[in-house]
Amino acid sequence: MSKITATYLVHDKKENLEKKAEGIALGLTVGSWTDLPQLEQDQLLKHKGIVEEVRELPGDTAADQYLGSKRKKGLLKISYPSANFSNDIPAILTTVFGKLSLDGEIKLVDLEFDKQLEQRFPGPKYGISGIRDILGVHNRPLVMSIFKGVLGKDLSFFKQQLYEQALGGVDLVKDDEILFENPLTPFEERIKAAKEVLDSVEGRTGEKTLYAVNLTGRTSGLRDKARRAAELGANALLFNVLSYGPDVLQELAEDKEIPLPIMAHPALSGAIGSSALYGISYSVLLGKLLRYAGADLVLFPSSYGSVALERSETLSIAESLTTESIALKKAFPVPSAGIHPGLTPVLFNDFGIDSVINAGGGIHGHPDGAAGGARAFRQAVDAVIKGEDFGDYADTHSELQKALELWGGVPVK
Amino acid sequence: MSKITATYLVHDKKENLEKKAEGIALGLTVGSWTDLPQLEQDQLLKHKGIVEEVRELPGDTAADQYLGSKRKKGLLKISYPSANFSNDIPAILTTVFGKLSLDGEIKLVDLEFDKQLEQRFPGPKYGISGIRDILGVHNRPLVMSIFKGVLGKDLSFFKQQLYEQALGGVDLVKDDEILFENPLTPFEERIKAAKEVLDSVEGRTGEKTLYAVNLTGRTSGLRDKARRAAELGANALLFNVLSYGPDVLQELAEDKEIPLPIMAHPALSGAIGSSALYGISYSVLLGKLLRYAGADLVLFPSSYGSVALERSETLSIAESLTTESIALKKAFPVPSAGIHPGLTPVLFNDFGIDSVINAGGGIHGHPDGAAGGARAFRQAVDAVIKGEDFGDYADTHSELQKALELWGGVPVK
Repeated sequence: MSKITATYLVHDKKENLEKKAEGIALGLTVGSWTDLPQLEQDQLLKHKGIVEEVRELPGDTAADQYLGSKRKKGLLKISYPSANFSNDIPAILTTVFGKLSLDGEIKLVDLEFDKQLEQRFPGPKYGISGIRDILGVHNRPLVMSIFKGVLGKDLSFFKQQLYEQALGGVDLVKDDEILFENPLTPFEERIKAAKEVLDSVEGRTGEKTLYAVNLTGRTSGLRDKARRAAELGANALLFNVLSYGPDVLQELAEDKEIPLPIMAHPALSGAIGSSALYGISYSVLLGKLLRYAGADLVLFPSSYGSVALERSETLSIAESLTTESIALKKAFPVPSAGIHPGLTPVLFNDFGIDSVINAGGGIHGHPDGAAGGARAFRQAVDAVIKGEDFGDYADTHSELQKALELWGGVPVK
Repeated sequence: MSKITATYLVHDKKENLEKKAEGIALGLTVGSWTDLPQLEQDQLLKHKGIVEEVRELPGDTAADQYLGSKRKKGLLKISYPSANFSNDIPAILTTVFGKLSLDGEIKLVDLEFDKQLEQRFPGPKYGISGIRDILGVHNRPLVMSIFKGVLGKDLSFFKQQLYEQALGGVDLVKDDEILFENPLTPFEERIKAAKEVLDSVEGRTGEKTLYAVNLTGRTSGLRDKARRAAELGANALLFNVLSYGPDVLQELAEDKEIPLPIMAHPALSGAIGSSALYGISYSVLLGKLLRYAGADLVLFPSSYGSVALERSETLSIAESLTTESIALKKAFPVPSAGIHPGLTPVLFNDFGIDSVINAGGGIHGHPDGAAGGARAFRQAVDAVIKGEDFGDYADTHSELQKALELWGGVPVK
């Protein structure tokens, strides 16, 4: 019998975690059990939630003090039969964490789709291997940069900025996620301008660059807008998935007439993932759910900038996006925010070759401009991949040298 | 110049809240300011975020201890020009709380649409007055009940349960939010069966009952499914809005071919609203956003059950749904969970006449069954509206009497 298994972290007011787990397993499925007649139990058995595991954790004094009472901390693992829900993420989320999300100190920390259920989800259309094929880059982490300050500027500014970033050798460039439909740099014009710039740079350098245009607007218009983007020569989409909903992403990913990789932005995710006591863990929210829904690349704050996640959280997002245990294409982890070339060794150490190194200020703030910043990142990546001493490599690569002088290097511990 | 104004509660690591606020106002709009040339400042002025107010709050020792460092607590009010975003909720959320939601201890606690922006949103199609007109009930709070344990049961069970609830006099009945498309009680069959039952009850009692059928499935199929529901004679929709996204609700609300009130369920909202440090306050999440998006009724946990919100939070949700300061139709607040007839006086005291009293166990668990439970609620409402002594009224109304004996009465403090 197919099922989905959720793991919850609880800080419960009551003493008995087994009872709590049983209450959830029944409350979110058949309601009650022991007082049901045998006939009804037989009828409802295939709908009943099952407590798979209850694990008590050491008490958390800081949390107890904050919450004002002693709590029982533990992990509750509960499975829900697929017979209870339709095969879509809204139904799954409502089943495993709908009402329950309101029930005190409870956080959804894992979600396991069984193989039968997994097959009902598309996963990434391109994934890591597909994006590598498009770019023709197979042997190193990708390098990505972000437009800066396009809001209020015109297309010539946009084109110049894109030109410099691409010329320096980034593999991907993304729109700022807060750039919406606007008269100065309309969606369709950005796509056309980007195509022109990127084709010209490719002619010069022989290297492809993907430009992820921000797909925005009303939900029901996204599909046509994305199709139109593809027609106009767009080669990737940026999508603020949590402002819409994971199922909207899935519909874009499943659409055969939208032959574009989708880059999921973590905007709003902090509202759900930040608390240790409530919400949904980042590895589920930005990791599993977005991979099942079909994101090809997923941005998240690295643990190294001023807006940062815990290192363990960033690793678990990446693990969810790339684990072989999920039989769908892998999605690129894109640790972001506060990234400069000196961080390349630690990022490579954390995320390995199948990741994207993404920078904004660390590209645009380079003394030689965005092209220099991009070159510095490519040099940093080359040094790491070749196993060369980072400092020595910088001696013969001036853009990397300047970046290290400005932002420093960060050794792998 | 049109704008939206967001208020954030912060527990900030740094000392200077003004600087923090300025950093947000710039970081989420034009990026930087003081180092820009005058010409560029002139060009970007209409896009710049404005710090409207910074208010320091008394330190919160419990939070400081929990977070492991002394924090500066305060409210930051920042406005963002409408020129920066398209007139849709995803763009607004990404603008005011996209990246920012990931930036440490920060919670979005208010969101003010100015009049110009407000006009771009539909609000409820029916709202309180429209639903009262449909029901022909103008002088009391409405009474609502929830199906119990339909999962795994067939249509005859469904019909019997609906019959009893409606016969007892509830104004609305909602599906369980975890009832999805299923072979025993398919969506279309539930609608047809409900119409038959409710028409027959109306013939007998002269009272209308709305049945909110759970609108579920893939996002792009919702519109047609809702239109089909209307064709089949459905008279209301239940919608797990946060599993989809507020814009999906708005598109349903705006659709002229879906002439049905929409009841928004708070499933998943706890993942966003529960923390005092992060996320989005319930008054924004379930109050303002859902009213702007077009919910006609909004469910939320009352402060009186085992799954409960703070009383002040429930009042602020209701205030957002009904305030005259928003020039859109008002939406019905539906405090839920753990409601029994004895709570009617306090619910009336909290939410007034324009609210819905909603019960599950408090209807079905009545000694005289669901019909008796419904009668007990109607009697409780009558007593309160007539200003009669609750205990005295119960003396002559046996269903209320039995409810009070079973669950007790709760006096207004």
